[in-house]
Amino acid sequence: MTKKIRVGILGATGMVGQRFIQLLENHPQFEISALAASDRSQGKTFQEACVWRLAGEMPESVKSMRVAAPEPPLDCELVFSSLPGEGGAARASEGAFAHAGFPVISNSSAYRMDPDVPLLIPEVNHEHLALIDVQRKNGSGGYVVTNPNCSTIMLALALAPLHASFGVTSVVATTMQALSGAGYPGVASLAISDNVLPFIDGEEEKIEQETLKILGEFKDAEIQAAPMAVSAQCHRVNVSDGHMAAVRVKLEASPAIEDVKNAMATFTALPQELQLHSAPKSPIIVREEPDRPQSRLDRDAGNGMSVTVGRLFPDNVLDYRFVALSHNTIRGAAGAAILNAELLIALGKLS
Amino acid sequence: MTKKIRVGILGATGMVGQRFIQLLENHPQFEISALAASDRSQGKTFQEACVWRLAGEMPESVKSMRVAAPEPPLDCELVFSSLPGEGGAARASEGAFAHAGFPVISNSSAYRMDPDVPLLIPEVNHEHLALIDVQRKNGSGGYVVTNPNCSTIMLALALAPLHASFGVTSVVATTMQALSGAGYPGVASLAISDNVLPFIDGEEEKIEQETLKILGEFKDAEIQAAPMAVSAQCHRVNVSDGHMAAVRVKLEASPAIEDVKNAMATFTALPQELQLHSAPKSPIIVREEPDRPQSRLDRDAGNGMSVTVGRLFPDNVLDYRFVALSHNTIRGAAGAAILNAELLIALGKLS
Amino acid sequence: MTKKIRVGILGATGMVGQRFIQLLENHPQFEISALAASDRSQGKTFQEACVWRLAGEMPESVKSMRVAAPEPPLDCELVFSSLPGEGGAARASEGAFAHAGFPVISNSSAYRMDPDVPLLIPEVNHEHLALIDVQRKNGSGGYVVTNPNCSTIMLALALAPLHASFGVTSVVATTMQALSGAGYPGVASLAISDNVLPFIDGEEEKIEQETLKILGEFKDAEIQAAPMAVSAQCHRVNVSDGHMAAVRVKLEASPAIEDVKNAMATFTALPQELQLHSAPKSPIIVREEPDRPQSRLDRDAGNGMSVTVGRLFPDNVLDYRFVALSHNTIRGAAGAAILNAELLIALGKLS
Amino acid sequence: MTKKIRVGILGATGMVGQRFIQLLENHPQFEISALAASDRSQGKTFQEACVWRLAGEMPESVKSMRVAAPEPPLDCELVFSSLPGEGGAARASEGAFAHAGFPVISNSSAYRMDPDVPLLIPEVNHEHLALIDVQRKNGSGGYVVTNPNCSTIMLALALAPLHASFGVTSVVATTMQALSGAGYPGVASLAISDNVLPFIDGEEEKIEQETLKILGEFKDAEIQAAPMAVSAQCHRVNVSDGHMAAVRVKLEASPAIEDVKNAMATFTALPQELQLHSAPKSPIIVREEPDRPQSRLDRDAGNGMSVTVGRLFPDNVLDYRFVALSHNTIRGAAGAAILNAELLIALGKLS
Repeated sequence: MTKKIRVGILGATGMVGQRFIQLLENHPQFEISALAASDRSQGKTFQEACVWRLAGEMPESVKSMRVAAPEPPLDCELVFSSLPGEGGAARASEGAFAHAGFPVISNSSAYRMDPDVPLLIPEVNHEHLALIDVQRKNGSGGYVVTNPNCSTIMLALALAPLHASFGVTSVVATTMQALSGAGYPGVASLAISDNVLPFIDGEEEKIEQETLKILGEFKDAEIQAAPMAVSAQCHRVNVSDGHMAAVRVKLEASPAIEDVKNAMATFTALPQELQLHSAPKSPIIVREEPDRPQSRLDRDAGNGMSVTVGRLFPDNVLDYRFVALSHNTIRGAAGAAILNAELLIALGKLS
Repeated sequence: MTKKIRVGILGATGMVGQRFIQLLENHPQFEISALAASDRSQGKTFQEACVWRLAGEMPESVKSMRVAAPEPPLDCELVFSSLPGEGGAARASEGAFAHAGFPVISNSSAYRMDPDVPLLIPEVNHEHLALIDVQRKNGSGGYVVTNPNCSTIMLALALAPLHASFGVTSVVATTMQALSGAGYPGVASLAISDNVLPFIDGEEEKIEQETLKILGEFKDAEIQAAPMAVSAQCHRVNVSDGHMAAVRVKLEASPAIEDVKNAMATFTALPQELQLHSAPKSPIIVREEPDRPQSRLDRDAGNGMSVTVGRLFPDNVLDYRFVALSHNTIRGAAGAAILNAELLIALGKLS
Repeated sequence: MTKKIRVGILGATGMVGQRFIQLLENHPQFEISALAASDRSQGKTFQEACVWRLAGEMPESVKSMRVAAPEPPLDCELVFSSLPGEGGAARASEGAFAHAGFPVISNSSAYRMDPDVPLLIPEVNHEHLALIDVQRKNGSGGYVVTNPNCSTIMLALALAPLHASFGVTSVVATTMQALSGAGYPGVASLAISDNVLPFIDGEEEKIEQETLKILGEFKDAEIQAAPMAVSAQCHRVNVSDGHMAAVRVKLEASPAIEDVKNAMATFTALPQELQLHSAPKSPIIVREEPDRPQSRLDRDAGNGMSVTVGRLFPDNVLDYRFVALSHNTIRGAAGAAILNAELLIALGKLS
Repeated sequence: MTKKIRVGILGATGMVGQRFIQLLENHPQFEISALAASDRSQGKTFQEACVWRLAGEMPESVKSMRVAAPEPPLDCELVFSSLPGEGGAARASEGAFAHAGFPVISNSSAYRMDPDVPLLIPEVNHEHLALIDVQRKNGSGGYVVTNPNCSTIMLALALAPLHASFGVTSVVATTMQALSGAGYPGVASLAISDNVLPFIDGEEEKIEQETLKILGEFKDAEIQAAPMAVSAQCHRVNVSDGHMAAVRVKLEASPAIEDVKNAMATFTALPQELQLHSAPKSPIIVREEPDRPQSRLDRDAGNGMSVTVGRLFPDNVLDYRFVALSHNTIRGAAGAAILNAELLIALGKLS
């Protein structure tokens, strides 16, 4: 048995931080050796600092760890970050770790759109990891690799096989997003009770921009944005976990609906080939029932790492439409970052 | 003071039937003289037959009325119908009343797409009422006038001023619909708890078809479907009342965003001119806040008869996008039918 | 028409503050002349300072008022306070206003248990207003009159006729309380989604203590606590408005169940006699249906000022049991304070 | 490895039936060999007959089984029953199976209060299984063993160590029960949205009666009801799974609070001693946090088989109070019956 890689978690007390801890508890390659969070928690044990909000108990292994400041050095070989992207803290902290030589595997939005930072979905654009070398040229041995926004990742993953096979030219996505996407305390109960909120700050812009980068091509040492138009309208609904998106696509080719379905249902990529620990057998599960996917029933498919697609039909305005769903704090956040790290190990990028 | 018109209600015990009763309680032109419902209720007093599910109490005036079968004759001058459109009962019952000489003002889907039946939104297509004469030629002195599906009515009303001013060529609508749209008991609580359902039987088809008829032109004694493409994806969310739709539109003209906004915000039509009792001052209310409309806060705007629009922006794929919301059992059902009847009176079509 | 009394509202931007504004909008005796709130809002117009969270629109009359600090003097003849009771701010602010000569009609918990402060429910213990004279002796011409905690008020009002007629010796109350009781943002949506929280900080103690004071007797210039035992267990449930309590009582007398029911159903008191504007016709509405009261259906009974009682049965352990429900931000907060002020006017205590 | 016992499930398509299937999927002692349900499902494959409503997928092993009528014989060695107790179907069907020689392990209410039928909680009253011999004398080799109502089981299990150590004389329980307790479709979403329902048909009576039988003594070939008074008030709240009860108890002895806590926290019994497969390590988990137990966080404790207790305090009216929570379709239904069957095997009662 090989020695586990020691990891630190930035933003460990938040909702995504807790998911990191939960998903890493019995991970075969990683062990948590450091926890960091914002001011109020520092110096406390994790058990004192953190109200555990996920089902089940806080893992024993982290209870007595001291919460450190999110500043290098930390006693670890790589850091996972779920620091909030707004306000500059994530950018400063993650940048400092990268400059100090740490690989930073970030769920934060801070660096996602930086030209030399990979915005990675292992099944979709692993060749973007070539940016690590570009990035290292500019700095130390450390680097930042990011995963997309929780809605974008689901959308881009569902689009990837369609884009590869048929060429996506336009995407219209309307999301119905879960409460956990806003962190804790996040959305006030009085705000969402018997209600839908048609606004999530910055979310529509993120989906519209990030999708183009993810599906873009690495060429001449940079990412060429994918030549497509993306429209996003985002809503918060009264669901704990699981983002849903109603999607229409326009394609260059004119595939039959069975070909569209097969492209998604049979899609596998490098993570499946490499049998990465967190890689789902089917990145996209296509369901035939008229009333699926559903948030509660499908969010945990593939241990929360699969996107479930259903209601695939021809569309009157664009070419095809479908509904996609995935777990926003697993595939859409902590699980995404962990899969990114697993890929980096498999490709020898961690040394 | 003029004598009130005596009305009967078909499907009086259901959710929409109860809304009819609530909205007619103090109506200046109508008084309820007959209540009809399906088998189990017949012969009972309304109080025995009906579990009142709206806030407030069952109006005293209906408590001791006997529930009749939904068959002519009924002791009334016109009938409002909220019989379920599926399964043929509404079609048989409403047809029988029309043949027996009654004006039938129906919220049911049974006759909506019949070529000689007006699918009426008073602010949008009152000239379609010319179909009444076409219809009467084929039958007795009675007739059927229908209102659209609860989602369609909101969509078509929001589109009407845009279509009139700029020519709508494509519409992409994604709905988040309330539980009351499914009637009672309707959606099981276990089905919607912590969940979104991406399927409402027949709903996408209704929106896609009805919109074309409503926005179509009456010409050569028939309705010419509007020359536009409509795409609908429908979802049930955990909200009691209030349907929301995220809408994108493509326009023939290229108006500035202020012109689009003004077209909606200043829109009024015949019902406002005639000061019909149930006509809202503003059929479309445009809000500027980034997080409106919201189901709970905006569904009762204009006494539930206004459509609230917000988040109007240019769109990356079509031309403009916005979010619309209205009360699905008032503007989307009982209130719609009552406004239809008020227009028929004002235009002298009730005799 | 007499001149309206000019009132100030402390804590105007909060949930209860907004209820004050909503309930006072068309009040025949009061007009709002000043609004005060904590630091962040001061100096802004109310429209800038306050996100309106109640259904309907912010009243025009307050939109352009400047928000002042909650310190005397304010341009008004009395102040309503909904400052938070915890942390001392309410105590300091309300005390300052009383010392400056203002009548302070408070919904805050800060002074409720002070020996010389009436804890008033107009239907229950108006003779406690004699404490105003005691209080004034100790200070200026101003004074503080408080209303009970939102759950206590419902419980004490339901108990009052039973205590008067049959002597209550023990009370066991288990509450299921609404989200609005925690203010805004209050309870996080992730905390209450698919959940019940068995803890509301300080609530059980408030119910157990306040009930004894309210039902106590004014004697020898002080309140003698009622000689009964009160047990409260409090829970937060996923309901927007409306507190429910399952109640068992032990009585000195052994009344028949019909007598218990009649005592509650026929209960009226001084506010009904004086026809105070906010006094409900029936302070306690007794319903016979097996499944009432319900939060959504009954919270607005008597314009939110009635307590609805149902499921009155003999109890195996105590003598009788029933379920009570009332609107926690109307009868339980803003409406309670306004009714208190109306009584003070009627009794000539405002000058 | 020993051969597994072949079991049939009556009422297999319902919510509890699905839980049986889920919990038995990888059970070391049982394998499902027959599925039975009411009329509409008979003759279909289980996949055709049943809409799977639990998270995760319908187990492969049952998909192609044919659904039989709930009548003997079935191809199995014992039957689990989750037939609805109301209306007589469960009584007829379970009685027929018992007369045909089958052990019937029932979750239905039909036979619970029959004098010769054990109402079994393995940790509490295994000596009641002596009734099997009484029962067999009256009939064939088959017999019926029942588990309590989903709320009662939680209450009686929490009370058992208190009754054994200190003598419980009075119990006041107020429940907040989950939607799954009503089966599917069960509670209409419109009925529970933003609401609490203070009525569950027959529930208060079941808790009050069953508790006395469970905690009673087997003596002279019958159960002597426990000499205590039980009061129950029951409410339906908007939670998917997990029943909560606020409980007060009066005790014969006067234990210190630490002794009360220890009696519950250290309680184990025969199932733990026998290491039955479904027996939780701790039947009662006592938590110290002020805001636990919570429905969502604690319902799966001990794989859904533990009762979580918190907020244990002295009570002003009775002696002590606490809040209890358990999973209503696992410990409260399917899991309870399976544990019963495991105990019957271990005690050699299955042959």
